[in-house]
Amino acid sequence: MAQAVRHDAMRARNLALVLGELNSSGPLTRAALSEITGLTKTTVSKLVADLIEAGLVVETGAVRDGERGRPGMVVQISGAHIAAVGLEINVDYLAVRVVDLSRTVRLRRTQAVDNRRAQPGDVVGLLRDLALRAVDEAVEMGLSVVGGVLAVPGPVDLVRGAVHNAPNLGWRDVPVAALLELPFPVQVENEANLAALGELWFGCGLSDFLHVSGEIGIGAGLVVRGRLFQGSHGFAGELGHVVVSPEGPACRCGGKGCLEQYASQDALVSAAGGTLTSAGDISWILSRLEAGDTAAVAACERAGWALGVALSSAINLVDPDTIVLGGIYGPLFPWIGDAVAATLTSRLGQMRDVVPPVVVSRLGTEAAALGAAGQVIQRVIADPAALLQN
Amino acid sequence: MAQAVRHDAMRARNLALVLGELNSSGPLTRAALSEITGLTKTTVSKLVADLIEAGLVVETGAVRDGERGRPGMVVQISGAHIAAVGLEINVDYLAVRVVDLSRTVRLRRTQAVDNRRAQPGDVVGLLRDLALRAVDEAVEMGLSVVGGVLAVPGPVDLVRGAVHNAPNLGWRDVPVAALLELPFPVQVENEANLAALGELWFGCGLSDFLHVSGEIGIGAGLVVRGRLFQGSHGFAGELGHVVVSPEGPACRCGGKGCLEQYASQDALVSAAGGTLTSAGDISWILSRLEAGDTAAVAACERAGWALGVALSSAINLVDPDTIVLGGIYGPLFPWIGDAVAATLTSRLGQMRDVVPPVVVSRLGTEAAALGAAGQVIQRVIADPAALLQN
Repeated sequence: MAQAVRHDAMRARNLALVLGELNSSGPLTRAALSEITGLTKTTVSKLVADLIEAGLVVETGAVRDGERGRPGMVVQISGAHIAAVGLEINVDYLAVRVVDLSRTVRLRRTQAVDNRRAQPGDVVGLLRDLALRAVDEAVEMGLSVVGGVLAVPGPVDLVRGAVHNAPNLGWRDVPVAALLELPFPVQVENEANLAALGELWFGCGLSDFLHVSGEIGIGAGLVVRGRLFQGSHGFAGELGHVVVSPEGPACRCGGKGCLEQYASQDALVSAAGGTLTSAGDISWILSRLEAGDTAAVAACERAGWALGVALSSAINLVDPDTIVLGGIYGPLFPWIGDAVAATLTSRLGQMRDVVPPVVVSRLGTEAAALGAAGQVIQRVIADPAALLQN
Repeated sequence: MAQAVRHDAMRARNLALVLGELNSSGPLTRAALSEITGLTKTTVSKLVADLIEAGLVVETGAVRDGERGRPGMVVQISGAHIAAVGLEINVDYLAVRVVDLSRTVRLRRTQAVDNRRAQPGDVVGLLRDLALRAVDEAVEMGLSVVGGVLAVPGPVDLVRGAVHNAPNLGWRDVPVAALLELPFPVQVENEANLAALGELWFGCGLSDFLHVSGEIGIGAGLVVRGRLFQGSHGFAGELGHVVVSPEGPACRCGGKGCLEQYASQDALVSAAGGTLTSAGDISWILSRLEAGDTAAVAACERAGWALGVALSSAINLVDPDTIVLGGIYGPLFPWIGDAVAATLTSRLGQMRDVVPPVVVSRLGTEAAALGAAGQVIQRVIADPAALLQN
């Protein structure tokens, strides 16, 4: 019995070793896999056969590795069978993304809503419908959805799958994973953390950066050497509540002068003379900016300055290599980028040889939902045995 | 040849495995070591013999592990032979600590100086004398010093062993490790990082905390699950330059309204009506506080508020479990602690079930030099083979 347990544990570890190598190195022959992992060729062949049977890996052709011997068949991760669902509840939209095991995005569904005026149950119901239709389409493409991750704008209780506190949604202690009732396991994670992972896996190609998610709320996710930094309880990255001015405007969080009071979507719209109903998306402020409206331009410069102040604190504390601005800061970058960079240079330039460069994410508001799907893929690759047991 | 290299690498790895287990678990029999590491008893016995011969491990008595068999001899890390030196250059003192491999502090030497008025070469000369006398005393105790780490107040160039920029010392690009010319290798690291490690290894017994070093400058070191977080370039933890008020007093760093302008030793002394010559140590301000001087009390309350503002940004960004106040904040805690805690509660209490508690370090200004010595010990334990080769 104990020996069987040990054998299973070893097989699980070796399956993860082989799949992890294909994930990081790309297509390889069995001989190369044996060389890299230190496992015997027989063991590798058995493991690869299991992974092929489960649809995680596919043979894609013959290559001649060296001078001698028969050509080997190259195997690689297969995108044809296994898929993950990334879900997002944000203040003004719902999103679903289906990504296959090779990290190709197979399906995108986004729905504009105003979740500040809705009950959690209704919001979750809408998202469930969106997700179930996406899963049906995925099945038609021959994909099998093995799990999902849901991105929410606020700290979460990972164990209970609950939103701990999302002041911008007005949600507190909502057991959202259970309410969703999807036909696969769903984990709930913080939107800003997932957006950073989305950037890592689907975005800029960097492995060291602080990703800033500008939305109705502002969050950040720090990636250091390809890994997300989450702090002691998974609540790290609350950039929106970093202090810009200690006696500034009151914030929903209970503090004063937090970054969100200067640079969130609502703060921008209201500083530009709009009303909160204009805040449904940022097209209103973009049209004002493109028309050269001085109030809108000044609102962006002030937001950029505030973002620079908060980021200079963040850079002093966590020392990121690059700042990646995502969410609404993507389209707004032409109007905020200079103010951010100038503030960083004036506050940090004297102490540092290199002030971290500020770049734009190309993923826009899609980053969190992609990161959510990518997180499921990452877990399959880290523990393929969990799938093979079924 | 290739096989010999591989054998050496395996032996090095196994030596580290055995010593690491003794470090984390305490005294063990060879049989227990074999069980835990998965190495054969013969291999373990050979490795332990090598570690004993090198003076890293010692036999300390017989125990009977189970029902059957002969009693086994317990082995443990030996403090009798190998020692490390922790060095510190701070603005107003130099410090040397000698710590043995079992992490017992064997020797403490501190010298008050005013390094703001001295040339780097003179400061380094004084520290060298202090260190050489300490090493002589260590040798008389039968200890062999295998290496040192030097703590400096500012970002460092780890590769060159140079102080990158220490505005409070007025140093820029000083190759301090080379200038020291000690008879053992010395690495240079940031004081605030080492103080956090000192707290981890010699202090509070916690493994998740943000340690704040209050000195002439203010730095912080974040420990998450027993590991120091250093950021992408090793410059993380510059809490002293987190923004308290964006248009506040000009800071030496080039910014405005940084925490150091409100809560550093100099800021406190000057807010309490003292002169910078009173800033040599904090006994002046402590005597005023104990006499109930209202300016001194108000200065501490203001410093505590500013520390609370900066820490609330830090907590939002990095999510530490506990805040440990070190350096001058230890003796000043009765006068600043309430203001820090009240500010954290008012800024964070509404968003979080638990606001990180604020506790005092018992190590005082000794934390960095102890962390420096502990860092050397940690490296010996991670790679004992490097010592055995000699």
